[in-house]
Amino acid sequence: MYRTHTCGELCATHIGQTVTLSGWVQRVRNLGGMIFIDLRDRYGVTQLVANENTSNDLTEVVETLGREYVIKVEGEVLERTNKNKKIPTGEVEIDIKCLTILNTSEVPPFTIEDETDGGEELRMKYRYLDIRRKPVKNALMHRHKVGQAVRRYLDAQDFIEIETPSLIKSTPEGARDFVVPSRMNPGEFYALPQSPQTFKQLLMVAGMDKYFQIVKCFRDEDLRADRQPEFTQIDCEMAFVEQDDVISTFEGMVASVFKDILNVDFAAPFQRMSYNDAMSLYGSDKPDLRFGMEIRDLTDLAKGKGFVVFDKTEFIGGISVPSCANYSRKQLDGLTKFVQRPQIGAKGLVYVKLGENGDIKSSVDKFFTPDDLKQWASHMGAEDGDLLLIMAGDRIQTLEALGQLRLEMGERLGLRPADSFAPLWVVDFPLLEWDEETNRFYAKHHPFTSPVQSDIHLFESDPAAIRANAYDLVINGAEIGGGSIRIFDRELQYKMFKVLGFTEAQAEDQFGFLLNAFKYGAPPHGGIAFGFDRLCSVMDGVESIRDYIAFPKNNAGRDVMINSPSSISVEQLAELKIKLVE
Amino acid sequence: MYRTHTCGELCATHIGQTVTLSGWVQRVRNLGGMIFIDLRDRYGVTQLVANENTSNDLTEVVETLGREYVIKVEGEVLERTNKNKKIPTGEVEIDIKCLTILNTSEVPPFTIEDETDGGEELRMKYRYLDIRRKPVKNALMHRHKVGQAVRRYLDAQDFIEIETPSLIKSTPEGARDFVVPSRMNPGEFYALPQSPQTFKQLLMVAGMDKYFQIVKCFRDEDLRADRQPEFTQIDCEMAFVEQDDVISTFEGMVASVFKDILNVDFAAPFQRMSYNDAMSLYGSDKPDLRFGMEIRDLTDLAKGKGFVVFDKTEFIGGISVPSCANYSRKQLDGLTKFVQRPQIGAKGLVYVKLGENGDIKSSVDKFFTPDDLKQWASHMGAEDGDLLLIMAGDRIQTLEALGQLRLEMGERLGLRPADSFAPLWVVDFPLLEWDEETNRFYAKHHPFTSPVQSDIHLFESDPAAIRANAYDLVINGAEIGGGSIRIFDRELQYKMFKVLGFTEAQAEDQFGFLLNAFKYGAPPHGGIAFGFDRLCSVMDGVESIRDYIAFPKNNAGRDVMINSPSSISVEQLAELKIKLVE
Repeated sequence: MYRTHTCGELCATHIGQTVTLSGWVQRVRNLGGMIFIDLRDRYGVTQLVANENTSNDLTEVVETLGREYVIKVEGEVLERTNKNKKIPTGEVEIDIKCLTILNTSEVPPFTIEDETDGGEELRMKYRYLDIRRKPVKNALMHRHKVGQAVRRYLDAQDFIEIETPSLIKSTPEGARDFVVPSRMNPGEFYALPQSPQTFKQLLMVAGMDKYFQIVKCFRDEDLRADRQPEFTQIDCEMAFVEQDDVISTFEGMVASVFKDILNVDFAAPFQRMSYNDAMSLYGSDKPDLRFGMEIRDLTDLAKGKGFVVFDKTEFIGGISVPSCANYSRKQLDGLTKFVQRPQIGAKGLVYVKLGENGDIKSSVDKFFTPDDLKQWASHMGAEDGDLLLIMAGDRIQTLEALGQLRLEMGERLGLRPADSFAPLWVVDFPLLEWDEETNRFYAKHHPFTSPVQSDIHLFESDPAAIRANAYDLVINGAEIGGGSIRIFDRELQYKMFKVLGFTEAQAEDQFGFLLNAFKYGAPPHGGIAFGFDRLCSVMDGVESIRDYIAFPKNNAGRDVMINSPSSISVEQLAELKIKLVE
Repeated sequence: MYRTHTCGELCATHIGQTVTLSGWVQRVRNLGGMIFIDLRDRYGVTQLVANENTSNDLTEVVETLGREYVIKVEGEVLERTNKNKKIPTGEVEIDIKCLTILNTSEVPPFTIEDETDGGEELRMKYRYLDIRRKPVKNALMHRHKVGQAVRRYLDAQDFIEIETPSLIKSTPEGARDFVVPSRMNPGEFYALPQSPQTFKQLLMVAGMDKYFQIVKCFRDEDLRADRQPEFTQIDCEMAFVEQDDVISTFEGMVASVFKDILNVDFAAPFQRMSYNDAMSLYGSDKPDLRFGMEIRDLTDLAKGKGFVVFDKTEFIGGISVPSCANYSRKQLDGLTKFVQRPQIGAKGLVYVKLGENGDIKSSVDKFFTPDDLKQWASHMGAEDGDLLLIMAGDRIQTLEALGQLRLEMGERLGLRPADSFAPLWVVDFPLLEWDEETNRFYAKHHPFTSPVQSDIHLFESDPAAIRANAYDLVINGAEIGGGSIRIFDRELQYKMFKVLGFTEAQAEDQFGFLLNAFKYGAPPHGGIAFGFDRLCSVMDGVESIRDYIAFPKNNAGRDVMINSPSSISVEQLAELKIKLVE
């Protein structure tokens, strides 16, 4: 038997008991007469002690211990003289009676402490050591708890978890698929699912009216910092529902998970905002509502006053940053640089400082009178002491840049605390997006999203104006879920494919199974999918999803720990009837 | 709103209420003055009625309804005159006040009833209709419940569910991998996991001492009737454990799941049997212990009596089938044919009938005296009225053939009832298996299984005799799980790879990440993996796993519903830098 207790559970009530613990040596402190060892496992740290009463043989073994050695210890639980209030086991220590070294360890390549000296690549290469660190371990345990809470809620609501296939069919619409050559069907390929979208819709046709699945999905994209080629969705679908049914079911889920895990109460119903309002007020379709600082349109007020930059532009807008009128030249230059970074790509930034004494200073004093500027301030609801930050240009680009600037200013002013949560449904998305490059419409969500009934007549006249029965759930500026009411009528689905540029034959070839299923009594249905990795990180107030994934890949899609992808054997290639192209 | 209730919940207490239901038209019976409709959803069937009080307009709509139309109905709950005790809603019917056809349906390609006229391929092609049938729907719902029960138990035992990657590295040991070409790393491939084996071991090194995952795994094998290229495992691992710890934890899990779902009580601990005993007594490493009929070794008794077939053979054994001495010539011929089928491949079958009156008749009367045969009967514990069935040949092959025959006779005698369960741990497996064809040892479980400590010295002298710390959980003749205590010592792992014919370089190349991890304090650990699909089907007493998988593939690895695998575009191939070989 390796242990009677874990390293996280012994306390004063155990004093006098003989116990056995196993774990890793976190630290050894040799104070001459006394040697202290911090023994660590998943559950905590317990102090072991060898002193003058410890046998010489045992002391000799203790003196050989190094960091990360795996040991088993038997001993008596003693009350500590120097209690450590910071840890649950801080009242006791174990007087070592017997010690077995289960395994030795080389010196780890980085320190296994809450703060580590290991860089990102090194931590990934030795991920099995990185996970021993409390922040990573806690992130994975948090993820487990979130998963359990999600399943508990959905099970109680009569949802059935159903696994859909991972070896499916490649469809060129959407992102790039990972494909899998089939040995048994030479020349043919499976694809890994980007989402179980069509399968969950088939399950609705099949009558399984409340489905969910926590499921791995795959996307062969050029990776950004926070994207992974494989990621996990909480995928859900319901039949016989309208948009409000889906929204209320899943705000219930999110509220229940936050309550279970963080003891945070969300007021139901969550706030809702149209896509247009989100863009106009926050320059984002996923606004962070932990703070205000809304964008105001200054186009009418600021145009036509002789300032060429403004006069020839589509849109002028700004935000009013509270109590920042005292920003220095250097700070303002920093903000200009911030918005000029390629990620934002703005040309410049106009400021107006509203001094405490009514003084107004701006970077456009030459073109606008103090009264002009006061008018702006008044329109923006700004007060003395505030700083107006103003940008101009193409409307959507400028709104988005202002949105980024708003987030940055919110961050600087501490208006985005990690333990505060602002959930929001964004609704009334456009159904379609026009792409200038390929000169065609794309589905804003996906081709199965239904249009608002009263907009269907616009398919011929003005497709861009069609609104979708689609909704995104946003928390603190992160999109954690998105979904829609689906098309369940075969003719409407054909109409949608047509506006996306599919011929009837192409639609049949790629989605024939779904179109065929719609012949046999498809019910009205809709659903949502949550990014599980993202949900976990947002709950912890953490930006990156990486530590919520046990074994993530780097930005080149590579697992640096196992060194994958890698070359395969000539025999494997031959069996698969494929050849590499040099 | 599409419904106030489901089609499974209305009963006498709802009489007088106005309700709205939505669902599928199961059946329409037009009795002239009255039209009855059975409306079906996932939850049940409710009877709707239109009669002389129903408006003409409404009756006209009702008369257009066909099978599998999707409708929404509003009406009053009435008490039925003819109650149907067979269904929970059988006391009531809905007087139709308002009916909306939500979607029409073509005539389905097979009848959607508990018993269907649809063949296997047709059912698979229209799986979304097949799932509407109660047996398939119930199988999927059962699977959901099993999954929930498993997670509940493991969570309560402090296990953490951790997702391991699906895009990993191809290793030639074991079955064939499915591989995934990497576009970002041309010429290189990921592999889909056959199991998360090495990752869960790394999680043990990482200190996550109780891990589980319900996870999709992949094997590119030539498919047998009941194999799928993708399948689901309940994958588990623990650190600081010995074999008994793993066994008791997971028999607890299985007992808890059977109790939760079937209300079946298993006595703990489960029976244990060595691999050798299982083979000798039941001719199988996964014996069905719902009944006895053990195999007895007759080699010493039956050899050397002048019957050439027996005299020149390695092994003679038999089973005693209770109360079958009255088997006819034809029945006995049938059994001979049964054992001669290619799946079993025996040469023949000897019978001895023990008549009620002490008469003995056998197919080998010429060679053996009645006293000889009585000696056999006595050795086999047979009684008057029993039928002895005896086979001879190579020992293991003959035992396996007798094992098959035993199962067949158990089946015929009704000794294998679907609602009776006999769990068993098979232990003391050999570590290695010699393969004549390739002239090398293979790991009986996998290369990470640890040898019994006291057998380690046999690595040099007699590897075949080394026993493994491995265990299989068998229920009713089906292996539902298997696992082992793992090697956690780097040197022993190298020794194991060596006996399997790996050079040190090959071991480093394929499993370097694991061998490297063993340098940094690997704890003792072990685990188990259950076949989730199989566990579900065994609980239901069903042989095939196929209906426990929502969208299974056929024996050619093809999804006939979506028609996958399929060819991909020239552009996709070009991006992946691969070419098809004609």
